[in-house]
Amino acid sequence: MKEILRSTSTICQAGDLVQLITGRDRSFIFRIVPGERFQSHLGIIQHDDLIGQTWGSRVKSHLGKVFALLQPALDDLLRDIPRQTQIMYPKDIGYLLVTMGIGPGTRVVEAGTGSGALTTAFAYLVGDGGHVYSYDKNPSFQQTAQENLAKFGLDHRVSFKQRHLEEGFDEQDADAVFLDLVDPENYILTARKALLPGGHLGCFLPTTNQVSLLITALKQHNFEYVEVSEMLHRYYKASATRLRPADKMVGHTGFLIFSRKLEPFAIPNEDA
Amino acid sequence: MKEILRSTSTICQAGDLVQLITGRDRSFIFRIVPGERFQSHLGIIQHDDLIGQTWGSRVKSHLGKVFALLQPALDDLLRDIPRQTQIMYPKDIGYLLVTMGIGPGTRVVEAGTGSGALTTAFAYLVGDGGHVYSYDKNPSFQQTAQENLAKFGLDHRVSFKQRHLEEGFDEQDADAVFLDLVDPENYILTARKALLPGGHLGCFLPTTNQVSLLITALKQHNFEYVEVSEMLHRYYKASATRLRPADKMVGHTGFLIFSRKLEPFAIPNEDA
Amino acid sequence: MKEILRSTSTICQAGDLVQLITGRDRSFIFRIVPGERFQSHLGIIQHDDLIGQTWGSRVKSHLGKVFALLQPALDDLLRDIPRQTQIMYPKDIGYLLVTMGIGPGTRVVEAGTGSGALTTAFAYLVGDGGHVYSYDKNPSFQQTAQENLAKFGLDHRVSFKQRHLEEGFDEQDADAVFLDLVDPENYILTARKALLPGGHLGCFLPTTNQVSLLITALKQHNFEYVEVSEMLHRYYKASATRLRPADKMVGHTGFLIFSRKLEPFAIPNEDA
Amino acid sequence: MKEILRSTSTICQAGDLVQLITGRDRSFIFRIVPGERFQSHLGIIQHDDLIGQTWGSRVKSHLGKVFALLQPALDDLLRDIPRQTQIMYPKDIGYLLVTMGIGPGTRVVEAGTGSGALTTAFAYLVGDGGHVYSYDKNPSFQQTAQENLAKFGLDHRVSFKQRHLEEGFDEQDADAVFLDLVDPENYILTARKALLPGGHLGCFLPTTNQVSLLITALKQHNFEYVEVSEMLHRYYKASATRLRPADKMVGHTGFLIFSRKLEPFAIPNEDA
Repeated sequence: MKEILRSTSTICQAGDLVQLITGRDRSFIFRIVPGERFQSHLGIIQHDDLIGQTWGSRVKSHLGKVFALLQPALDDLLRDIPRQTQIMYPKDIGYLLVTMGIGPGTRVVEAGTGSGALTTAFAYLVGDGGHVYSYDKNPSFQQTAQENLAKFGLDHRVSFKQRHLEEGFDEQDADAVFLDLVDPENYILTARKALLPGGHLGCFLPTTNQVSLLITALKQHNFEYVEVSEMLHRYYKASATRLRPADKMVGHTGFLIFSRKLEPFAIPNEDA
Repeated sequence: MKEILRSTSTICQAGDLVQLITGRDRSFIFRIVPGERFQSHLGIIQHDDLIGQTWGSRVKSHLGKVFALLQPALDDLLRDIPRQTQIMYPKDIGYLLVTMGIGPGTRVVEAGTGSGALTTAFAYLVGDGGHVYSYDKNPSFQQTAQENLAKFGLDHRVSFKQRHLEEGFDEQDADAVFLDLVDPENYILTARKALLPGGHLGCFLPTTNQVSLLITALKQHNFEYVEVSEMLHRYYKASATRLRPADKMVGHTGFLIFSRKLEPFAIPNEDA
Repeated sequence: MKEILRSTSTICQAGDLVQLITGRDRSFIFRIVPGERFQSHLGIIQHDDLIGQTWGSRVKSHLGKVFALLQPALDDLLRDIPRQTQIMYPKDIGYLLVTMGIGPGTRVVEAGTGSGALTTAFAYLVGDGGHVYSYDKNPSFQQTAQENLAKFGLDHRVSFKQRHLEEGFDEQDADAVFLDLVDPENYILTARKALLPGGHLGCFLPTTNQVSLLITALKQHNFEYVEVSEMLHRYYKASATRLRPADKMVGHTGFLIFSRKLEPFAIPNEDA
Repeated sequence: MKEILRSTSTICQAGDLVQLITGRDRSFIFRIVPGERFQSHLGIIQHDDLIGQTWGSRVKSHLGKVFALLQPALDDLLRDIPRQTQIMYPKDIGYLLVTMGIGPGTRVVEAGTGSGALTTAFAYLVGDGGHVYSYDKNPSFQQTAQENLAKFGLDHRVSFKQRHLEEGFDEQDADAVFLDLVDPENYILTARKALLPGGHLGCFLPTTNQVSLLITALKQHNFEYVEVSEMLHRYYKASATRLRPADKMVGHTGFLIFSRKLEPFAIPNEDA
């Protein structure tokens, strides 16, 4: 159980988490186990043949396919997770982490676990000094997420709890709560109880109708500084002589809604 | 020197980093020192009157102005930094952190320091197990950045180096290098030497012409998986009954360019 | 009363509609009347001094300020109109014209008149073979719009009707109806009666809540092929060597909603 | 040869241009000829069975497929044109028409003809009092465009000229010139000769590198008020209760560049 996720060696060693990428961005992430082999429709590579290779070098499968050998970043882990549920993209997750102040030492509660993408991002960033509590009523989601977290070496930073949210959260001192639910407006008090005073509440919702319901609920329960926004991420063709935005883009994933848990007003607010 | 930046107490104590926000989002960030006082055009508040208050409660200045008392998140710190140079926004910084895999334990080199916004984000996320090396030839930029980092309690995670980049970086084992320069195309080899094999190189550039020059230089020096993109962040009026995008938005800050340090090709690539 | 709005002469003549533009895009639109003078804070120019000048040449005010002498395009007229009400931009109006099939010969009904910007665009495009019927309950809006249309030489193509929409439209054979109202959902039947079978209904609404109400009303009254969209117009700094998107952009004007008047279903639809 | 493109009758008649649309937005545009039949993979419909039907009513193919019977708008015509070349969308064309002042009576020169989409839009809007001159060196493009224009009843408003642009344009009094070419920077003087003084020059280019070259050429040849922009068109799911932007969007078609033909400076410009 190591704080530092990535190897600081220049060469690949047993136990390392590796990423093989082809020239066309097909990516495979796995952990090096001596004697095992990587197998895909692009061919077979022995783990033993990867051990001792310099990071960033190229390796060949038995079919002659060339891969680059790398250590995955958080972005790569997120893209590696099979998507079973509502999709959050790195564009959303990056902004969310900064806005909610997630970092080493943070205690985060999330519901639901879903595909585990956000769980992975939280676990990656809270370090061994922080912790993630991830709730979902669906046991198969949690099992898949747990397997992914284990593969990434991040599972010791997450407590999975299979439960209906009606039963509430166990925690009362979270720095941040994230609700990735269809109806977060029904669990604002539940989130409030789990949060430290002043704590951060984040939500992710695809439709404008849901956002309207949520805003009403937040204001009823003394969550303030409500911020609603969305991220549009625009890729470019990386050509020096024909630089241009990509033809297609993701038009929408969801709206990000952030707010802070404030205390009920004791002092009349002349700003209102 | 504590790993956990934010207090886990429910009440404000001496030494805490606090944020006072008015009803209209004017924000003030400072550290609690018994006997000192907060002073602005909105009035005066004694630090001693803040000590013992619950986070998220309201306090009043001697002019009767009401503030909410909170602990700042990374986003708040970034917005608090005076902008002297090219601007990166939380939308850019969040995605950058995820894509370059910045997290607890990461070793990051950046040039230039500029306003110190990105330095702050790096320092926040690498934790006490990681480190940031920040280069700038301009001593006044570095002094301001250092003062901000000290105020935020993050300065022990950063080594500032005042130097022209022609002299190169001292580090040879960085997980990630970020070049926030006018002409990063001239320092690709410099960055390459500082990076671990397979490491991440990130750049931020306002014009398309600069991006074209950079792409050419990256490809010449075996940086691959070049990704060029930009973030458009769209805020909404947080009204349940009149939900709509904000009238004005930031149209552009800069392009984000990421790539990986690969080894020169030993194996012919049949993908090409 | 001429079909062709713009002079086809190469030189400016009495009666022409002209636009004076300074180097920094300040624009003034007026009609040339011998003996009159143009006056602004940038100085005075005699109309007689403009007569005989080649289009595209420069003229000087008595203060030495230089202007380019041009004939305005529709875009220039739209930007010249004082904005009293909800704003539609050329980005919105252009798409609207194409989608609703506005062109020579079209008969268009609109409510309300508002600032007259859309009225101007309709009048410009329907030609002398088409006509615009513009309703507003506010007499001062209509007077201002009528004055602008007269200045542009387009007023003979527009019939202004000062009326509350509860009284309905007079027309029954419009190719297109445009509702630029706060509550178009209350006037869908009114619009339906004014439209030819298969005709186009367009609306412009700032909030998502209004759009939801409108969609429901449209579907109740056999308007189909409902399209909801918005236009984001991104300007660039027109610099060959420092090409980049502008720092600021308009984040939102409104949502455009289009649909077609269909007949009630006589034939069961197996597509449903 | 009629000025008014669309029938003002409430029912479909011989000679009308019709559009059949299925429930899922499949669209077919053709002209009614007694005795002929419409045939597609969705079934057969006799033209004689459409004659006498009210616009907006539903008709059934022999396979039982239901269609709505409508008259197409410009937008529908543009979407009906087979795309052989670089794509301009209604979002681009609408703004272009407004900015360049295209309307009844306008004389427009364009090169190249390409798929004829823009030619169609110009012909639709200039009316019988204006005219379009469309140049292309590729005879097959022009033949296809001419056939489409003929089908739409717009061909009498267009003169097609098959020619290399090196030979120049024949016209000298165009209100507007549009260059939809790979290298418009090489034909700025050619365009200048075709334009009336003060006339509008428009271009459409996919890459930033092309835009930079064009800006330089425009400034060299006294084209001023250079505007560079792009349109992002965002569709929404038209659901009252689940209103949200569409998942996918077109990320880029091209940059629109507009400028005005000015006379060389006779008067020193103190604005510079």
